[in-house]
Amino acid sequence: MADIDRAKLVKYRQDGARQVMERLNLDLLVLTTFDNVRYVADIRPFFVTGWMPNAIAVLAKSGDPFVLYPDEYVAPSPYWADEGAALKDKYGWSHYTIFNPALVSDMYAEWLDWAFQKLGITRGRVGLDSAPWQWFVAFKQRLPNVELVDAQTELLKQRAVKSAEEITVLREAALASGEAVMRGLAVAKEGARDLDILGAAMGDAFRHNSEGDAFFPFLTCGPVRGGALYPENREIEKGDPVILDLGPIIDGYMGDCMRVEYVGKPTNEFEDLYRAVYDCMYAGIKAARPGVKASSLDEAVRGVIRERGYPVHRFDSGHGVGLSCCELPIILRADAYKQPGKLDLTLEPGMVFTLEPRLYKQISDDKFIQASLEEIILITEGGCEVLTNNAPFLDDLIDVQPTKYP
Amino acid sequence: MADIDRAKLVKYRQDGARQVMERLNLDLLVLTTFDNVRYVADIRPFFVTGWMPNAIAVLAKSGDPFVLYPDEYVAPSPYWADEGAALKDKYGWSHYTIFNPALVSDMYAEWLDWAFQKLGITRGRVGLDSAPWQWFVAFKQRLPNVELVDAQTELLKQRAVKSAEEITVLREAALASGEAVMRGLAVAKEGARDLDILGAAMGDAFRHNSEGDAFFPFLTCGPVRGGALYPENREIEKGDPVILDLGPIIDGYMGDCMRVEYVGKPTNEFEDLYRAVYDCMYAGIKAARPGVKASSLDEAVRGVIRERGYPVHRFDSGHGVGLSCCELPIILRADAYKQPGKLDLTLEPGMVFTLEPRLYKQISDDKFIQASLEEIILITEGGCEVLTNNAPFLDDLIDVQPTKYP
Repeated sequence: MADIDRAKLVKYRQDGARQVMERLNLDLLVLTTFDNVRYVADIRPFFVTGWMPNAIAVLAKSGDPFVLYPDEYVAPSPYWADEGAALKDKYGWSHYTIFNPALVSDMYAEWLDWAFQKLGITRGRVGLDSAPWQWFVAFKQRLPNVELVDAQTELLKQRAVKSAEEITVLREAALASGEAVMRGLAVAKEGARDLDILGAAMGDAFRHNSEGDAFFPFLTCGPVRGGALYPENREIEKGDPVILDLGPIIDGYMGDCMRVEYVGKPTNEFEDLYRAVYDCMYAGIKAARPGVKASSLDEAVRGVIRERGYPVHRFDSGHGVGLSCCELPIILRADAYKQPGKLDLTLEPGMVFTLEPRLYKQISDDKFIQASLEEIILITEGGCEVLTNNAPFLDDLIDVQPTKYP
Repeated sequence: MADIDRAKLVKYRQDGARQVMERLNLDLLVLTTFDNVRYVADIRPFFVTGWMPNAIAVLAKSGDPFVLYPDEYVAPSPYWADEGAALKDKYGWSHYTIFNPALVSDMYAEWLDWAFQKLGITRGRVGLDSAPWQWFVAFKQRLPNVELVDAQTELLKQRAVKSAEEITVLREAALASGEAVMRGLAVAKEGARDLDILGAAMGDAFRHNSEGDAFFPFLTCGPVRGGALYPENREIEKGDPVILDLGPIIDGYMGDCMRVEYVGKPTNEFEDLYRAVYDCMYAGIKAARPGVKASSLDEAVRGVIRERGYPVHRFDSGHGVGLSCCELPIILRADAYKQPGKLDLTLEPGMVFTLEPRLYKQISDDKFIQASLEEIILITEGGCEVLTNNAPFLDDLIDVQPTKYP
């Protein structure tokens, strides 16, 4: 864990959640997702792919959050005595379920009802984040006097601006992601397997304190076809571009970094593509400062791609990182959404997000070469800072302050 | 990827989904989760922690599933020409969003509406799996003549019985999980760090073709306190029990294996605990055959724990594995749920699940030693087979057929 003032970190996040409650005029906030529960309750819930959520945090206008999560005691404790009586009294449930939560939504509703009674709450406006729809239906049936309000957008808006403590942890996650990618790409030699790259990179991420993957890592080697993203146990050949993109998780905060390696001497075509990616990144970084719209950064990146005659990528140019990977601000392609204004945030100091230009050149009917980079950017008072530090930027292209890995 | 008849695998799964439609009298099935989309559409969607779902599969009574998922072409293709015109025509959207899906539920509803029009559907009973509640609300508003029906329980019941092809892949995932755990525990020596164990294990999992983590891996070293699950960069000491539990993912199917190592010569107390875990596992395996209730296995495991005087674990004794980790059948503690009958499945050949007895002994006011094992079990016509193969079972305790790693 990073060396931070933990109480300060938690207070900042709980104050943030209470600001959301105020803006939405809520009596209570019910949080169920892995990241939101962690945001207010500072616990690390079990994480099982496709089996979320498994914990509920209830936040009232004052006081500590009330957490429905018996597996704080998944390992035994005096709470286990007498068939878990103390566990039941404190957490409302003496048993830890491993059911997919959509299958026992009635039990979660009953559990929430128990919590509301314990808190003395019978009615009011209750904010709910992105729960499964079965929970929503069960909650409504079980708690008819409660009005459920969508709190997810406001929560993510609130979470977009990070505190000094959060930035310290995110800096570690960003550096760990750059380091892990570098360790992986060091294996990218003629005759190696692409899976060896992934093994080296992910092993390093775990040795650097990673809790898991922010996303299932992307790795492509050699010329790519549409859809190519993942390794296929391919033997690496001379002349292969290798692109690796992964995200370790440090103390809940997610890193995300993408780098490219070329096996052998790069072709002129590839060099040109790589230089263009640099220039895209630089254009984005140059545009990144308080007061500008997120979509301006996307346009800065996209403009360089167009100008150089490469096909523009069909997604946005970056995304916020924090307790989830892909949160606000999205560096969005403004014309791709019906109501871009709603989510096209104005950048503020403390916002942390990626820029990830991806460039491609068609080399035959269905084959492409690609070059991509991804940096994590922090908006500062004066402009921005790059939190990842291993990018082989050319000196004359970059005037931001890169950080050093401890 | 495993050497299987892929067409047969996909057909089995799609037939299964159609049986669910028949049982629930559905005109259409709308699937949104990572695992359900893969189940019917055989695509591997992006996986980003806390940012799901991002793809929709629509299954009608006949024909191929209709997939809303432009990032089949996240890498470029001729579909990108003319601002993605061909992409838009085929997938309804020429842009790949990196927004958290709860924030753009209106766009997903519009997208689904487009798909329904393309399929000529305006009304009917539509099954929906575990989508975010914002989608449910948006779908209902956008598609007022459609009746949304919960299909998640029936889907997971259907998915509980695996085909020969699925078993082949699950066998690989089970063996890869055992192998990765073994590689990790080989590092568990005096003076090493617990994170080195995780690095070695997870690096090995990725080198064995893992796509990512079925869950964030659990690792505890030394005496544990309540809640202990995760490594803390601890220096391993002589006399430490070390427990590692992780799950590689092979071609979408999830492994899950837990093993224990002891650094130095085990104490008598620990040996007794370890022997008891063996006996729990053996009791569970012995009870595992077609026609018995899942809860009978839990009781077989729990009975041995009680009989030996250790505190019983406060969760169920195992869970199904497949395209998600923790699916049906749950080897449930029958008395922990209000309506156990509903989900207490009768075991059938082709069901695949874990047994994971966890035993603890209190050694001071708040410290415990633990010993746990986890095997993946396949129900066969005649009884069961253990798909994981690295458990150091004693010969006289085990009479099932262990498999060999290729």
